[in-house]
Amino acid sequence: MGTSVAPWKQLLFSAIESNSHLSHSSYLQLATIGLNGRPSNRTVVFRGFEENSDRIQINTDLRSRKIEELKHCPFSEICWYFSDTWEQFRINGRVEVIDASNPDQTKLQQREKAWFANSLRSRLIYICPTPGSPYNNSEQPNQEVKLDPSSGPVPEYCLLLLEPEKIDYLNLKSNQRLLFSSMASGTGEKCWTSEKVNP
Amino acid sequence: MGTSVAPWKQLLFSAIESNSHLSHSSYLQLATIGLNGRPSNRTVVFRGFEENSDRIQINTDLRSRKIEELKHCPFSEICWYFSDTWEQFRINGRVEVIDASNPDQTKLQQREKAWFANSLRSRLIYICPTPGSPYNNSEQPNQEVKLDPSSGPVPEYCLLLLEPEKIDYLNLKSNQRLLFSSMASGTGEKCWTSEKVNP
Repeated sequence: MGTSVAPWKQLLFSAIESNSHLSHSSYLQLATIGLNGRPSNRTVVFRGFEENSDRIQINTDLRSRKIEELKHCPFSEICWYFSDTWEQFRINGRVEVIDASNPDQTKLQQREKAWFANSLRSRLIYICPTPGSPYNNSEQPNQEVKLDPSSGPVPEYCLLLLEPEKIDYLNLKSNQRLLFSSMASGTGEKCWTSEKVNP
Repeated sequence: MGTSVAPWKQLLFSAIESNSHLSHSSYLQLATIGLNGRPSNRTVVFRGFEENSDRIQINTDLRSRKIEELKHCPFSEICWYFSDTWEQFRINGRVEVIDASNPDQTKLQQREKAWFANSLRSRLIYICPTPGSPYNNSEQPNQEVKLDPSSGPVPEYCLLLLEPEKIDYLNLKSNQRLLFSSMASGTGEKCWTSEKVNP
């Protein structure tokens, strides 16, 4: 049972597949706790699962506010609504931040792999002026900014890994709602339980 | 200047209008702080602005978890992404919960007005078994449940009012980002400042 696909993951794969004709279907909302203790919420892009794992990959800029927030409180809830199939996944868990300073070689390789999985255009974002800082026209990169397609990740590039602990699944067409919770088994394997609840 | 429309509101009206052909364009994600201190995030429906105000109206069930969360920490950040125009509004502010126990007659009238603005089908939701509680087939309302169209709000119906304090607007087509912040002027009127920042 430990090696089988988590039951919610099958539902998520199916939703991703059924909504893949919509370009915004890979967009989800990531909530964190702001440094002032208030909620913070923004749209990010789903970048697939970590290999052989349930962890959700998200790219971000090391200079963005969510990095500071996640270092202060490493928990997040994703809200992912699929507009064609009327399905919602609320995925709660801990987020690991992997930047260039990570001491673990395996994690650095994972970050590099995720970097190259991005389009060249997506990689260019990390060379832009600091997100959220006052706009200064003279500071904007000119159109000539080039990035060697074979260059590895820039220091500003950061990989986030969300480890799902609880999933709240809602299907507004069938009016069904399922809660999935993870537990560590005796052998350290992750086990999932599920419960049908009222929508 | 106090009576003019808030500058971000014009942008929001325009986004609502441009995306109105998409049925999901009134869906937004509301983040709150969970009772365990972790973020909580779910899709809700925009129910318009309060009359002559910037406050955003949202309906919810008094028995839903967000009510408890908002009573504990009354702040929220909305993330509202418009998939056709590639615009994102992050709206941060305080949320007021108006239920049947509210001592203010004006607020109770406002709740009643919001109730009748809902379709009959939407009103029926509040008669269903407690959301999030274990599903019990025998407890489900039979198809015969009827609600008199002239009946006022049921006790489970709750109106949320989010008072925007900060808005982070991002346009992914023009690659522009604007931050709007509110301040109370000397006369108690709300004033807005805006700043262009890097996307």
